Amino acid sequence: MNTGVKVGIIMGSSSDLPIMKDAYDFLVSMGVSTEISVVSAHRTPGRMVSYASEAAQRGLQVIIAGAGGAAHLPGMVASLTTLPVIGVPILSRNSIDGWDSILSILQMPGGVPVSTVALNGALNAGIIAAQIVALSDSAVLDKLTEYKINLRIKVEKDAAKLEEMGVEKFLNSKG
Amino acid sequence: MNTGVKVGIIMGSSSDLPIMKDAYDFLVSMGVSTEISVVSAHRTPGRMVSYASEAAQRGLQVIIAGAGGAAHLPGMVASLTTLPVIGVPILSRNSIDGWDSILSILQMPGGVPVSTVALNGALNAGIIAAQIVALSDSAVLDKLTEYKINLRIKVEKDAAKLEEMGVEKFLNSKG
Amino acid sequence: MNTGVKVGIIMGSSSDLPIMKDAYDFLVSMGVSTEISVVSAHRTPGRMVSYASEAAQRGLQVIIAGAGGAAHLPGMVASLTTLPVIGVPILSRNSIDGWDSILSILQMPGGVPVSTVALNGALNAGIIAAQIVALSDSAVLDKLTEYKINLRIKVEKDAAKLEEMGVEKFLNSKG
Amino acid sequence: MNTGVKVGIIMGSSSDLPIMKDAYDFLVSMGVSTEISVVSAHRTPGRMVSYASEAAQRGLQVIIAGAGGAAHLPGMVASLTTLPVIGVPILSRNSIDGWDSILSILQMPGGVPVSTVALNGALNAGIIAAQIVALSDSAVLDKLTEYKINLRIKVEKDAAKLEEMGVEKFLNSKG
Amino acid sequence: MNTGVKVGIIMGSSSDLPIMKDAYDFLVSMGVSTEISVVSAHRTPGRMVSYASEAAQRGLQVIIAGAGGAAHLPGMVASLTTLPVIGVPILSRNSIDGWDSILSILQMPGGVPVSTVALNGALNAGIIAAQIVALSDSAVLDKLTEYKINLRIKVEKDAAKLEEMGVEKFLNSKG
Amino acid sequence: MNTGVKVGIIMGSSSDLPIMKDAYDFLVSMGVSTEISVVSAHRTPGRMVSYASEAAQRGLQVIIAGAGGAAHLPGMVASLTTLPVIGVPILSRNSIDGWDSILSILQMPGGVPVSTVALNGALNAGIIAAQIVALSDSAVLDKLTEYKINLRIKVEKDAAKLEEMGVEKFLNSKG
Amino acid sequence: MNTGVKVGIIMGSSSDLPIMKDAYDFLVSMGVSTEISVVSAHRTPGRMVSYASEAAQRGLQVIIAGAGGAAHLPGMVASLTTLPVIGVPILSRNSIDGWDSILSILQMPGGVPVSTVALNGALNAGIIAAQIVALSDSAVLDKLTEYKINLRIKVEKDAAKLEEMGVEKFLNSKG
Amino acid sequence: MNTGVKVGIIMGSSSDLPIMKDAYDFLVSMGVSTEISVVSAHRTPGRMVSYASEAAQRGLQVIIAGAGGAAHLPGMVASLTTLPVIGVPILSRNSIDGWDSILSILQMPGGVPVSTVALNGALNAGIIAAQIVALSDSAVLDKLTEYKINLRIKVEKDAAKLEEMGVEKFLNSKG
Repeated sequence: MNTGVKVGIIMGSSSDLPIMKDAYDFLVSMGVSTEISVVSAHRTPGRMVSYASEAAQRGLQVIIAGAGGAAHLPGMVASLTTLPVIGVPILSRNSIDGWDSILSILQMPGGVPVSTVALNGALNAGIIAAQIVALSDSAVLDKLTEYKINLRIKVEKDAAKLEEMGVEKFLNSKG
Repeated sequence: MNTGVKVGIIMGSSSDLPIMKDAYDFLVSMGVSTEISVVSAHRTPGRMVSYASEAAQRGLQVIIAGAGGAAHLPGMVASLTTLPVIGVPILSRNSIDGWDSILSILQMPGGVPVSTVALNGALNAGIIAAQIVALSDSAVLDKLTEYKINLRIKVEKDAAKLEEMGVEKFLNSKG
Repeated sequence: MNTGVKVGIIMGSSSDLPIMKDAYDFLVSMGVSTEISVVSAHRTPGRMVSYASEAAQRGLQVIIAGAGGAAHLPGMVASLTTLPVIGVPILSRNSIDGWDSILSILQMPGGVPVSTVALNGALNAGIIAAQIVALSDSAVLDKLTEYKINLRIKVEKDAAKLEEMGVEKFLNSKG
Repeated sequence: MNTGVKVGIIMGSSSDLPIMKDAYDFLVSMGVSTEISVVSAHRTPGRMVSYASEAAQRGLQVIIAGAGGAAHLPGMVASLTTLPVIGVPILSRNSIDGWDSILSILQMPGGVPVSTVALNGALNAGIIAAQIVALSDSAVLDKLTEYKINLRIKVEKDAAKLEEMGVEKFLNSKG
Repeated sequence: MNTGVKVGIIMGSSSDLPIMKDAYDFLVSMGVSTEISVVSAHRTPGRMVSYASEAAQRGLQVIIAGAGGAAHLPGMVASLTTLPVIGVPILSRNSIDGWDSILSILQMPGGVPVSTVALNGALNAGIIAAQIVALSDSAVLDKLTEYKINLRIKVEKDAAKLEEMGVEKFLNSKG
Repeated sequence: MNTGVKVGIIMGSSSDLPIMKDAYDFLVSMGVSTEISVVSAHRTPGRMVSYASEAAQRGLQVIIAGAGGAAHLPGMVASLTTLPVIGVPILSRNSIDGWDSILSILQMPGGVPVSTVALNGALNAGIIAAQIVALSDSAVLDKLTEYKINLRIKVEKDAAKLEEMGVEKFLNSKG
Repeated sequence: MNTGVKVGIIMGSSSDLPIMKDAYDFLVSMGVSTEISVVSAHRTPGRMVSYASEAAQRGLQVIIAGAGGAAHLPGMVASLTTLPVIGVPILSRNSIDGWDSILSILQMPGGVPVSTVALNGALNAGIIAAQIVALSDSAVLDKLTEYKINLRIKVEKDAAKLEEMGVEKFLNSKG
Repeated sequence: MNTGVKVGIIMGSSSDLPIMKDAYDFLVSMGVSTEISVVSAHRTPGRMVSYASEAAQRGLQVIIAGAGGAAHLPGMVASLTTLPVIGVPILSRNSIDGWDSILSILQMPGGVPVSTVALNGALNAGIIAAQIVALSDSAVLDKLTEYKINLRIKVEKDAAKLEEMGVEKFLNSKG
């Protein structure tokens, strides 16, 4: 039953996909085998129980779960597995500035943890998953290290350009 | 299987009992057959699924669910039943002033409602449950009506006493 | 005087109608006889007292009240009836992110409850009303059960489509 | 029917009296004829309608209304009178840091104003009432002016004492 | 020096005028002699001291002060006069959802009150000022009473129209 | 240089130890080799750079960092390593209800993630670390599974006791 | 008129002294000539205008102003001087968790800045003042440098002690 | 190595430049020699350590640091220098209304201060830096004094224009 997939990404609604895509794209770019689907705690509770209960047996190492509003998906998945679960609060329509989603995911009771990232922070959820996979996969670690170096280089280039061009020219060059 | 119990009260932890007791005591005083137990969404997810899925068949008319922090119990129960579910946000230890519990219960997505009451508002949850039961039980309705009259009388007595005694004497009489 | 109407929907201003319409449309789709009108606690207090005081005699089983800002309508109606009252906080112009409306409706004192739903959550108010009506009306219960099944099926279809198409194609198909 | 009373102080519960007393005591010290009682919007709505509707005919010039939680008293009174209404948000048990009371009183819709003061700010409500009365009563104005001067003198004395004594001695002198 | 002007409206910046205009227009419509100008606590502190110190001698009965961000104008004016001061929190650019302005005006210390209205609530500030003026001017009181009746009639008309037309036609008629 | 230690726990001040101890004790109970020390981002920035930069080479698999107020330690450590970093917001003296610590840790920019847990949620940080270690250590996995079962059993026992004893006796038995 | 005093510390009320003392004691320990007094924006506006207007002529280089609630003192002083002004938000009685004081000081409009420190952060206000004085006074700079080194050493000692003693013994040693 | 530059402005990302430009332009207009660059605490921690550690030796007198979200740059720079550091919270994408950035900068622990300005308040950061420089540079002081006078004159002109034109004409003239 182990399919070789290491990270599972799920979200409460397909309307969350434009945000959650950041985690998927990052993991693919790191060469981590990743699956992505829609699982709603509130509308498909049975599907959620199955997904979470079977994840470890299926060989997953990490689950990333994104949801908005009263976001119960990450915490409920965490209640059903011993795998690390990363929660992504999503700013949905009629949310109260995202506070509902953040607090519903972050403030889990002692015993049932969710690793929470920033509002709409699916990219960082992908990076954490890759960091965990990299503990036993040096190819992923090498790519992560390179990614981190590139973050630095991009800032250094911007800094050099700003110092050389001055404020006005720099801003104009950015259009 | 129908035991005649009309209202089920559950809570995420027995430490919530001193608060949730207000709902139980009120319903008992109204003559509504009521059960009370501990069901944790995060620590006993299987028990929660059973409880919520079987509640309607067991003859319950209303479920009251109380929880603190990232409070998923009311919403998850609501996802598993067509009965009205009343959620009680509880101010727990390490809560952020109760905001976490309130928003986790209140901000449910369209399609899966929870009737939310004030922070620690278990008494009001009990009253709502009684109001629902009273729609088909005139004995409960009579008691509810009397309860409402007594709320009024108590204020009127306090007002008369304050107007008669004056501020200082009134405060002294309250000790 | 009983007109057969089971649910009354009122709102503080006709500008709330685009939101409150969700409750009305849902209840109509469930076959629940429903009335809808404008009643302002602050601008028509007399009308509000009449509406709330007479609701039970007129045969209503549930009142849904929506209001924005310092939203007193749901709580004041609840003070004048023993019927269950569902409050819908509405995000109005010059609101402070909806907090004013939410807290004015949610934080009712012990003794006078309002079942509060999410910000702009009129659909869920309609569902709660239908759940209460369904306790004594099996036709409504059947429709509610079907509604719940359709919520599930819609997610499952989305999930199947996403798993089949992959992320990019799925997003393109949504336009 | 005009009894000569110029300011009416009401509160939602006699438990608010230790706070609302500050307004009463101030007005008495200014020589303003003042009445004080308990009127609950939620538990005695009829009494509230009577009080607010008859206040102007009874000769009152200002109404001060204090309430906690979902505080509807000041706004509802304002909906029933053309007199100026001053609202005092009170930090009650199970309040969410007072935000509920503040927003329920402050965020009144256009057309129905309440003059809101700080959380537990009954003293300032009393001063505003006195300022209004003083517009047509020079004896009250003289006392208000003297009160304001004394506020200044008290600070100046503290400043002089601190400058003379130094920090440590000053703090010790305050015990 | 008394010019017959009864209400003075000031604001921290001319960019607040589109909001503060609501107070001015209301007072003019009530026949209350009103002046309006720009006085900044932070940029023209001297002008503010003069304005506030001289207001009573100039015959003003009420001052309305609007400001955004760290809004010190209403409170500082209140420190310099015994007249009633009404503060209008304004949602300015770079405000934190208006909280800064609201709290800077509302939470005045005991002894120096400001009557605070809702965010951008200049209309209500105008009404309060008119209510105060009306205590000694029956022509203003008559107009206020008429204004209040019209608020009611407008809601009643909307309600009648909605009940007659039904939801869809009503919404279409509003365009 | 690899000492066999798998998890490093650091905190900004030794006053955080009573909270952070929960993570340490849990990891020890799981049989995970764990070190614990004090590293302040603001008072020992050099020490922080060394600790974070050398952690991976020293064989650590996970870093847990706790801090209060403007909590920069978790995020700065994350900027200096490719290891997964778990951040624990701590409610410190003069904190604003913990919001400062939570937001300083949670809202990391894209590219530099921190796995954030609830306020004072050091126990959950320990569990996440154990979950990660368990991916390559079946002895830890077995203990985690047992821990999870015990969480469930404890609730079930409480539930059975409450159902058997009733509310009053149960509360008395808890003293 | 220049008395050699370089830093002036003022506060809105002598009840703020236990907090503001931290700034005074630090500056004295750095050898910076410092004065301290009570100046209330709201109760002694004239005194405030004098103090702020004359500060530069009197030779002050920095003003530290602390206040609670609707804290206008720092901003008003800043409007009256070109000296750098440091504002200390103070958590006072009836404050709303300190938000009122923080926002009243922090959110100053463009053109009139106040350097704001953390809630009750008078020590840091003292350090900033010393940093400014140190730009032209190498004795102060030397002391500041030493202070910074001691902060580091204190953490290093705690870390060494914890690593040596282990968690339990360390906590016991702290009593 | 001292280049004569007195103020260094840094920001976490070049996307912050449109905001931080306000500080640069102001300082240039005051004749203060100023440098500006990009330094990220999270993506270029090494560069940040160098910049902050060497700033004093390079002759800088003040550092202005702007950042959004979990904004660690100002505080980390402050941990590495004895120079005064001014922090500018920036409202970035996916920020929670700016609260994250404000609290991450404002709530620094005792011993390591950052002078915090309003959200997006880079202009005020520039003014504070100029105020500090002006303590030892009378040319800058003269320009600051003139700037302050012009703030006043602009308000006075607006006031005169509004008083002369009346509300409608004034608003039309502003287009």
